[in-house]
Amino acid sequence: MGIHQYFWSLNELERIYRCPGKFKFEEHSVAAHSWKVVQYAKTLADIEERNGVTVDWKKLYEITSSHDYGEIFIGDIKTPVKHASRELRALIQQVEEGMVDRFIEEHIPEEFKPIFRRQLQEGKDNSTEGLILEVADKLDQVYEAFAELKRGNTEKEFIEMYRHALIKISHIRLHCVDYFLDQILPDMVNDEIVSRVDIRSITDEALGGRRNGMEQ
Amino acid sequence: MGIHQYFWSLNELERIYRCPGKFKFEEHSVAAHSWKVVQYAKTLADIEERNGVTVDWKKLYEITSSHDYGEIFIGDIKTPVKHASRELRALIQQVEEGMVDRFIEEHIPEEFKPIFRRQLQEGKDNSTEGLILEVADKLDQVYEAFAELKRGNTEKEFIEMYRHALIKISHIRLHCVDYFLDQILPDMVNDEIVSRVDIRSITDEALGGRRNGMEQ
Amino acid sequence: MGIHQYFWSLNELERIYRCPGKFKFEEHSVAAHSWKVVQYAKTLADIEERNGVTVDWKKLYEITSSHDYGEIFIGDIKTPVKHASRELRALIQQVEEGMVDRFIEEHIPEEFKPIFRRQLQEGKDNSTEGLILEVADKLDQVYEAFAELKRGNTEKEFIEMYRHALIKISHIRLHCVDYFLDQILPDMVNDEIVSRVDIRSITDEALGGRRNGMEQ
Amino acid sequence: MGIHQYFWSLNELERIYRCPGKFKFEEHSVAAHSWKVVQYAKTLADIEERNGVTVDWKKLYEITSSHDYGEIFIGDIKTPVKHASRELRALIQQVEEGMVDRFIEEHIPEEFKPIFRRQLQEGKDNSTEGLILEVADKLDQVYEAFAELKRGNTEKEFIEMYRHALIKISHIRLHCVDYFLDQILPDMVNDEIVSRVDIRSITDEALGGRRNGMEQ
Amino acid sequence: MGIHQYFWSLNELERIYRCPGKFKFEEHSVAAHSWKVVQYAKTLADIEERNGVTVDWKKLYEITSSHDYGEIFIGDIKTPVKHASRELRALIQQVEEGMVDRFIEEHIPEEFKPIFRRQLQEGKDNSTEGLILEVADKLDQVYEAFAELKRGNTEKEFIEMYRHALIKISHIRLHCVDYFLDQILPDMVNDEIVSRVDIRSITDEALGGRRNGMEQ
Amino acid sequence: MGIHQYFWSLNELERIYRCPGKFKFEEHSVAAHSWKVVQYAKTLADIEERNGVTVDWKKLYEITSSHDYGEIFIGDIKTPVKHASRELRALIQQVEEGMVDRFIEEHIPEEFKPIFRRQLQEGKDNSTEGLILEVADKLDQVYEAFAELKRGNTEKEFIEMYRHALIKISHIRLHCVDYFLDQILPDMVNDEIVSRVDIRSITDEALGGRRNGMEQ
Repeated sequence: MGIHQYFWSLNELERIYRCPGKFKFEEHSVAAHSWKVVQYAKTLADIEERNGVTVDWKKLYEITSSHDYGEIFIGDIKTPVKHASRELRALIQQVEEGMVDRFIEEHIPEEFKPIFRRQLQEGKDNSTEGLILEVADKLDQVYEAFAELKRGNTEKEFIEMYRHALIKISHIRLHCVDYFLDQILPDMVNDEIVSRVDIRSITDEALGGRRNGMEQ
Repeated sequence: MGIHQYFWSLNELERIYRCPGKFKFEEHSVAAHSWKVVQYAKTLADIEERNGVTVDWKKLYEITSSHDYGEIFIGDIKTPVKHASRELRALIQQVEEGMVDRFIEEHIPEEFKPIFRRQLQEGKDNSTEGLILEVADKLDQVYEAFAELKRGNTEKEFIEMYRHALIKISHIRLHCVDYFLDQILPDMVNDEIVSRVDIRSITDEALGGRRNGMEQ
Repeated sequence: MGIHQYFWSLNELERIYRCPGKFKFEEHSVAAHSWKVVQYAKTLADIEERNGVTVDWKKLYEITSSHDYGEIFIGDIKTPVKHASRELRALIQQVEEGMVDRFIEEHIPEEFKPIFRRQLQEGKDNSTEGLILEVADKLDQVYEAFAELKRGNTEKEFIEMYRHALIKISHIRLHCVDYFLDQILPDMVNDEIVSRVDIRSITDEALGGRRNGMEQ
Repeated sequence: MGIHQYFWSLNELERIYRCPGKFKFEEHSVAAHSWKVVQYAKTLADIEERNGVTVDWKKLYEITSSHDYGEIFIGDIKTPVKHASRELRALIQQVEEGMVDRFIEEHIPEEFKPIFRRQLQEGKDNSTEGLILEVADKLDQVYEAFAELKRGNTEKEFIEMYRHALIKISHIRLHCVDYFLDQILPDMVNDEIVSRVDIRSITDEALGGRRNGMEQ
Repeated sequence: MGIHQYFWSLNELERIYRCPGKFKFEEHSVAAHSWKVVQYAKTLADIEERNGVTVDWKKLYEITSSHDYGEIFIGDIKTPVKHASRELRALIQQVEEGMVDRFIEEHIPEEFKPIFRRQLQEGKDNSTEGLILEVADKLDQVYEAFAELKRGNTEKEFIEMYRHALIKISHIRLHCVDYFLDQILPDMVNDEIVSRVDIRSITDEALGGRRNGMEQ
Repeated sequence: MGIHQYFWSLNELERIYRCPGKFKFEEHSVAAHSWKVVQYAKTLADIEERNGVTVDWKKLYEITSSHDYGEIFIGDIKTPVKHASRELRALIQQVEEGMVDRFIEEHIPEEFKPIFRRQLQEGKDNSTEGLILEVADKLDQVYEAFAELKRGNTEKEFIEMYRHALIKISHIRLHCVDYFLDQILPDMVNDEIVSRVDIRSITDEALGGRRNGMEQ
């Protein structure tokens, strides 16, 4: 009953973790993921603007910040399930939308209902803002998978996640995608190609002529 | 390729947690839940046997130990989603079964395929063993919710979980259900009706005449 | 070097936890907090707009999403320290701003420097957007403290946090503050005034006439 | 008092973790371990049956599911301690059995006492079922240690655990041991001999001709 | 081989948690417990000195800081086990001492062996320092149990731990025990007798005449 | 009001974690760190004594055990911030000392105030004990960073922490520094230069002639 119910519900997304079941060195809540998507989208939109594209910032704000809100109702359904059949996928989306609608119907005051209906609907359309959201969402998969691989995780899932997200991004026609592929991705990959840590030589360098007991 | 793939996959159920999103004082993995179901079912079957019912222990072993194995493939879909529409529920079950089948097809050696198909299929039929599994599965919901409520969790979900599981159990016609309702449940409820801890009186009792600085 | 460095750094805010040292039932990362602030601010701005106020959504987007980014550099300095002396507080803010500036200088490409300087500066000015950010930030303290108190945490810090945040909010002159105090806060407080869970009566109600072993 | 006490106690094994003190990437509760042992034993028994051996499934069910129940009473005593002296080991086992007996005496209703005494006694005898339990228990040590080594853990304890468990298994004369050594173990070892993840080449492959900014 | 082995081993006590298996709101590592014992002992010794007792600070330093080092070798054996029989208890202590001796023999350089033998032996003798250690060790049980009870934990074990530790302390004849019972314990108990948090009245007080929407 | 307040506050240092924000495989609380510093200092002082230096054990006890107590009041301020300007650093230290003083003023009974003032002041002066504390504190940074690097953490921060701590130690003129550099550090570095784990060869060695299915 009321906006309180909505504000209170946000806390749930701090307790839903992405990629349940897979071994990882670091967990990411849906809330933290959503925040990073908001951040990426901001910079991606800046890049679009610098290339003369007009960005509707209110729309971008609305669709990026709420893009995974529906997970409160449907939980964490694995990607392979969602894509198992076109029919199933459509049904799941219907159910999610139905539950969001019911939440709005029951809890949101009359005067805010249209606003919430607009904000909580699926935002990934073909508008500039919808495409930026799509890139930002996939970009977080790139970073999540990259961080695991960099830390030595050898689970196939993260290789696949990294690959698929890159491929998805590379097929979207936005200026910011070019910028990502040309300027950001090379830095990321080079960042990783760092020689492994060699404790002995760091030690030698730090101590210079001082130490004398170290065997060589 | 091979049984190794199956054994290795079991580890995933140690990392899928029940009731994602809800605030709780204690998390339960699907693996730990499955083990408790195996334990409850064993005692429930003992009760049936004592009442002259014949139990097929091999079948009971197979269906209880593997009853949530499919969650590896479909992840943690919330109960309200599963029940949102009969059609959706049927589709989700189809997909889960399809994914289990594909796993068996791809990874299990030819000679074990029939065994795995039998073990990994849905076990909750109307046989004695199927009904015992149903009771044992609900019994773990009773205990999970009871523990949260006892520790002061006031989330509505756990009240609902406790109520629904009790109601579900009470409608199943087995000797062990009578035993549970008549002998086990009253102990559980009375266990909770314990006077709140009073630190001052525990302190007084422990120290007897010894202490003198305590104000009264 | 480059935007990659910025995107990669966001991950750090998933690992900085609020209120270090205090006992709490639930931890909140700065990333998750930031996301909730983005969400509250969106609805607060909707309320302003409904009251005829013009909102600069781009500015609101920029200042809310990045408002705690500086914590990457200065870490979690306790509020009492920050406020210990006007002089110290000014110095700490200077240092934080200096470190953000240096980060921009070293890592952000020339053409984005002005954008990042604007986005990463302190956003809590006296503009509508700055005030909305202030309310949203305090609102999250209200919700964090409320959740702890509701779950039985008796630490004085959370009572203080709840009180101070409420007082701070009540002194800001915005339509959304009136709405919060008149419509949202009463729901929150009433939500809490729920009779404690009584397991015995829930059990009795669930089982109706069915059970017979329960002592009364 | 009553079966409730037993069901409630199971929760404790979700909070006792194996190998306390050692650095590991993943913790395993005794409950999750017990469930995996139940699973392995099921497949190992299937292999025995395929080789014409008769399996007593009720007995197997009882001894595998409860095989570490006694840890509720004695806690996690390190293996080196248990084996420090034959005398100490016998004494510890005596104490554990005494505490299980006392639990049964105090809490289990008269009519179930014989059943619980049989189920909670040490199951690793020389029967087919006892030997299968022994193999399944060691198999989980193999998998636990293997997973740590695979993820880069260099602690000597896990090398030792892996080695000792393999040696122990290889000395047990069962058909399923042959199957494990000939069919499962090679898959496990080959699974590990995977080339390390090379992020650059995955990136190149994913993007094909598309990207152009990547230095080579 | 060498002091490095000893320094490196300390890390293990950060990963051994006290009271394994029991439900608690907060875990305590043996390392953190040891540090608190060091702190309590310091103040307890200050109290003795103020009463004219001579304290051997070097001895007190040595025995308090290392008093649980042996847990690295024997792990966390439950108190009931240790006390199950006088014979078993003596044997376990023998084994622990044997393992500590072997560690010193194998890893500690010749010239430090006598020092380590003295430091790592059982320190709870009848000297002033030994008795202070005993009080400090029990005092941490009082605080651990008190914190759980205060936060709403109703597990019997913590009531028992609190009671037994208080009784144990009250039987030791030291000036600091009198001070604890007369000055510290009453503050602790009174600290707890705080009226439960009442969110509505805190809210009313914070907002004063400002709010108007709150129902009363 | 009273020593109780002090004892109760120690618990906070179990919940403040070092190096907030950085990715690490293992977290270290300030309490656990403090205990390890106490341990290192004890052995470092033993080395000084063996070289004829007189150690004031009471002073050493006081300054090592409490050396990070002030973090309860100021929280975890990042090292770069502390060192950002000489002026800021001095101010932060002033504030910390002021808060410790106020705590003593408000909570510590009159007769203990001088003792607490001496114990809780900054202990790192130029006395033997002050220098030992400095070495012990840096030694824990060496071990924390070493453990991360050894486990595959490639974050620059831990390389820097390791280097800086080594350099700092090497500039302090104490016998125990020579001992560390000549005897302990070489063991640490050699300990790391262990060939990577090769699962196949461990498997082959464990099974000897027994296994036959392993491809070669």
